[in-house]
Amino acid sequence: MATLKNIITNINSKNGRRFDIFIQILIILSLVAFSIETLPHLKDSTRSLLYWFEVFCVSIFTVEYILRIIYSKKPWKYILSFYGMIDFLAILPFYLSFGLDLRSLRIFRIFRVFRILKLVRYNKALRRFKQAAVDAREEIILFLIITGILLYLSAIGIYYFENEAQPEKFSSVFTSLWWSISTLTTVGYGDIYPITIGGKIFTFFILIIGLGIITVPAGLVASALSNTVKLKKKKHGE
Amino acid sequence: MATLKNIITNINSKNGRRFDIFIQILIILSLVAFSIETLPHLKDSTRSLLYWFEVFCVSIFTVEYILRIIYSKKPWKYILSFYGMIDFLAILPFYLSFGLDLRSLRIFRIFRVFRILKLVRYNKALRRFKQAAVDAREEIILFLIITGILLYLSAIGIYYFENEAQPEKFSSVFTSLWWSISTLTTVGYGDIYPITIGGKIFTFFILIIGLGIITVPAGLVASALSNTVKLKKKKHGE
Amino acid sequence: MATLKNIITNINSKNGRRFDIFIQILIILSLVAFSIETLPHLKDSTRSLLYWFEVFCVSIFTVEYILRIIYSKKPWKYILSFYGMIDFLAILPFYLSFGLDLRSLRIFRIFRVFRILKLVRYNKALRRFKQAAVDAREEIILFLIITGILLYLSAIGIYYFENEAQPEKFSSVFTSLWWSISTLTTVGYGDIYPITIGGKIFTFFILIIGLGIITVPAGLVASALSNTVKLKKKKHGE
Amino acid sequence: MATLKNIITNINSKNGRRFDIFIQILIILSLVAFSIETLPHLKDSTRSLLYWFEVFCVSIFTVEYILRIIYSKKPWKYILSFYGMIDFLAILPFYLSFGLDLRSLRIFRIFRVFRILKLVRYNKALRRFKQAAVDAREEIILFLIITGILLYLSAIGIYYFENEAQPEKFSSVFTSLWWSISTLTTVGYGDIYPITIGGKIFTFFILIIGLGIITVPAGLVASALSNTVKLKKKKHGE
Repeated sequence: MATLKNIITNINSKNGRRFDIFIQILIILSLVAFSIETLPHLKDSTRSLLYWFEVFCVSIFTVEYILRIIYSKKPWKYILSFYGMIDFLAILPFYLSFGLDLRSLRIFRIFRVFRILKLVRYNKALRRFKQAAVDAREEIILFLIITGILLYLSAIGIYYFENEAQPEKFSSVFTSLWWSISTLTTVGYGDIYPITIGGKIFTFFILIIGLGIITVPAGLVASALSNTVKLKKKKHGE
Repeated sequence: MATLKNIITNINSKNGRRFDIFIQILIILSLVAFSIETLPHLKDSTRSLLYWFEVFCVSIFTVEYILRIIYSKKPWKYILSFYGMIDFLAILPFYLSFGLDLRSLRIFRIFRVFRILKLVRYNKALRRFKQAAVDAREEIILFLIITGILLYLSAIGIYYFENEAQPEKFSSVFTSLWWSISTLTTVGYGDIYPITIGGKIFTFFILIIGLGIITVPAGLVASALSNTVKLKKKKHGE
Repeated sequence: MATLKNIITNINSKNGRRFDIFIQILIILSLVAFSIETLPHLKDSTRSLLYWFEVFCVSIFTVEYILRIIYSKKPWKYILSFYGMIDFLAILPFYLSFGLDLRSLRIFRIFRVFRILKLVRYNKALRRFKQAAVDAREEIILFLIITGILLYLSAIGIYYFENEAQPEKFSSVFTSLWWSISTLTTVGYGDIYPITIGGKIFTFFILIIGLGIITVPAGLVASALSNTVKLKKKKHGE
Repeated sequence: MATLKNIITNINSKNGRRFDIFIQILIILSLVAFSIETLPHLKDSTRSLLYWFEVFCVSIFTVEYILRIIYSKKPWKYILSFYGMIDFLAILPFYLSFGLDLRSLRIFRIFRVFRILKLVRYNKALRRFKQAAVDAREEIILFLIITGILLYLSAIGIYYFENEAQPEKFSSVFTSLWWSISTLTTVGYGDIYPITIGGKIFTFFILIIGLGIITVPAGLVASALSNTVKLKKKKHGE
């Protein structure tokens, strides 16, 4: 049993690494199965196969979850930790499906996808990224506020320019906000765009100002991450 | 009354902070109300509710404005300051609405949205951003000129290539300018694009050159801000 | 006449600065006039007004050009310099229009827009930008080659995936190249996009790889410019 | 014959450089010919001309390949090297075309485009880029995983919001993934976009979060490359 404990908790042991890779492959396969389930016009045989694969996955994940609780020094600390809750949410939807009718099941099944977050459990990237996000916390929040104000003001502006010309597309400030988002992020689906001269000139100025603002948070994240990475490298003497 | 003065002017006191948060929530709610008003097919009861909520907001903002003038050491300095004028513009449209007919009201109501700028009154981000913008002032202006020239020359170019093939879409240099903007910012709504081979090759070269130019001001802002942030951190010994 | 010479050649004198601003305003106005001329359904009176304004502009520009030659120490050096040729090209189309029939005139008139380049004659931005471009010369050329290869390979790839499904849109490698350009620059007009599963998966990988490559030259320009600016600041002791 | 060996293997000799430029021009011309072949409605005479040009190109490339094997000190090392295999793949499709029927020929002909990679044989950019990619290897892989998770979770999210409203466009998680890709890369073709309010709000948050993540790998590549370039410059004492 000491070996089993080692496999579950010690990622650095040979068998621990193997077990981790096995769990990760199972997560990816269960997500692929989940995605296939959403395909329309599935055969009943396929649907049945996917169900039994899901039963298999949940069994493994449940056993893993229980063993993690047992082998943990402070079980409640694990249960209430971020990954403990992810492990729980990854199996919950399956067990809930017995007590609930099929309609509400659909909403709960979505929790299954949080299994994907188990993929980065031992990933150093997440820790570094978390650190970078904490370092640039203040600046990022401030810029999100400025971005929010910019999006709102541009929505108000375009509403006043375009509402009369396109009353159905720019029907309210809320639909104009959709335009703000798709324009300032430069996605530009083409479902909503200004047609009046005033609206086009307004778009011009909003884009010139907006591009210089909306890309700043991304730059700050990258810069903070770059610094964190450098620091980590220095520490490890690389 | 010394307490009231403290609440209004001292953001660092416990009650001052509470009052500030209350005002900020009220601003956001009044902007939400403003946005809901633009929805078509509103019920009369909703419209009436929104009106009375607006009356409530303006009352609070007016009291706040008057108290700020009274408690200010140099009242005129506050009145003529940026935030003093924002505070005034935030309540002006409501009082104007009594003296004006309903048609012209619509234009004035838009000033209400400037309330949003009150949200960043005590925000250090705006000061840092202002500093960053001042630091990179010269470079940003120069690049805006180059961007302007690039947009204009590309509009002229595409006009000559596409005007004959699409006389309605590329009807003049002005409509071609709209294409320049939506293309060089990579928004690409899809309402206007070249169809001739010459126009497509021209777009290719303009994009290759343009992307290297139009993203530079954004990079300069981010770089200047990053320096300002570093400087601030050094000062505060963080 | 010494004063006139001073006005033309010495940008730092009071009158020289005034003259320069006057010329710059005239350039912008003549470009606006040029743009208005492209509007369809112009009245004859407007067209006539624009013509006489053009005559006025060209007269001023011609006098300026001749005076610059006269007052120049080495006339031929000025005539063959970049700005000397811009000054010549800015007036050439007008004089050519007398000797040529109206059809070919249209092609020549486009040279008038090069007047816009006169706007940056004394602009330090252009010099810095030129220096930055020279500094990062090698890297930019190399990345343009890589970008070219990427665009070509993605055009070939999408052609093989989509040609059968959309023989009209992806009719040849050349039309596929148009898709490559509009996709990898993230413009995405929506006039041409993959519909097969293979094509979509291919687009996914091309975008993941491409975004990491196509934005690099822009980053190199910004970085080189940032260094040039720093160097200039140090020199001037700012 | 020593001269011939010199021409083939010594890029720094005068004739070696000439030969290299000749080969590079031939590669570009053969790729242009390949592209022209894909044009629909080609005349038989053009098709015949292109075929004989291809025969000419392949002859030269074959002679070059054989000479490179002969003059190489370790022939097998060359044959199994990256460029050796590119040289082989560049001529293979032509010789295969004799033994195969016309249908399967089409698939093999695509290998001809790998000739383009011969263009960067002596290019230092590729080496630097390779070095930069190796330096930022760990970070890039980690961020590709995070990008993958983000794309998948946003596909799941939009599927739940839009599937009922647009059952044909968001028919499964796989078609939703296509939306994720075109949205988060900000391409935004406009063939698929959310129409429900929930879906639009979800898109808003995904874009705000996503833009700060998806641009990070590009930034890391640029940063790593910039460092590699600096290092190279120091080494060469530039």
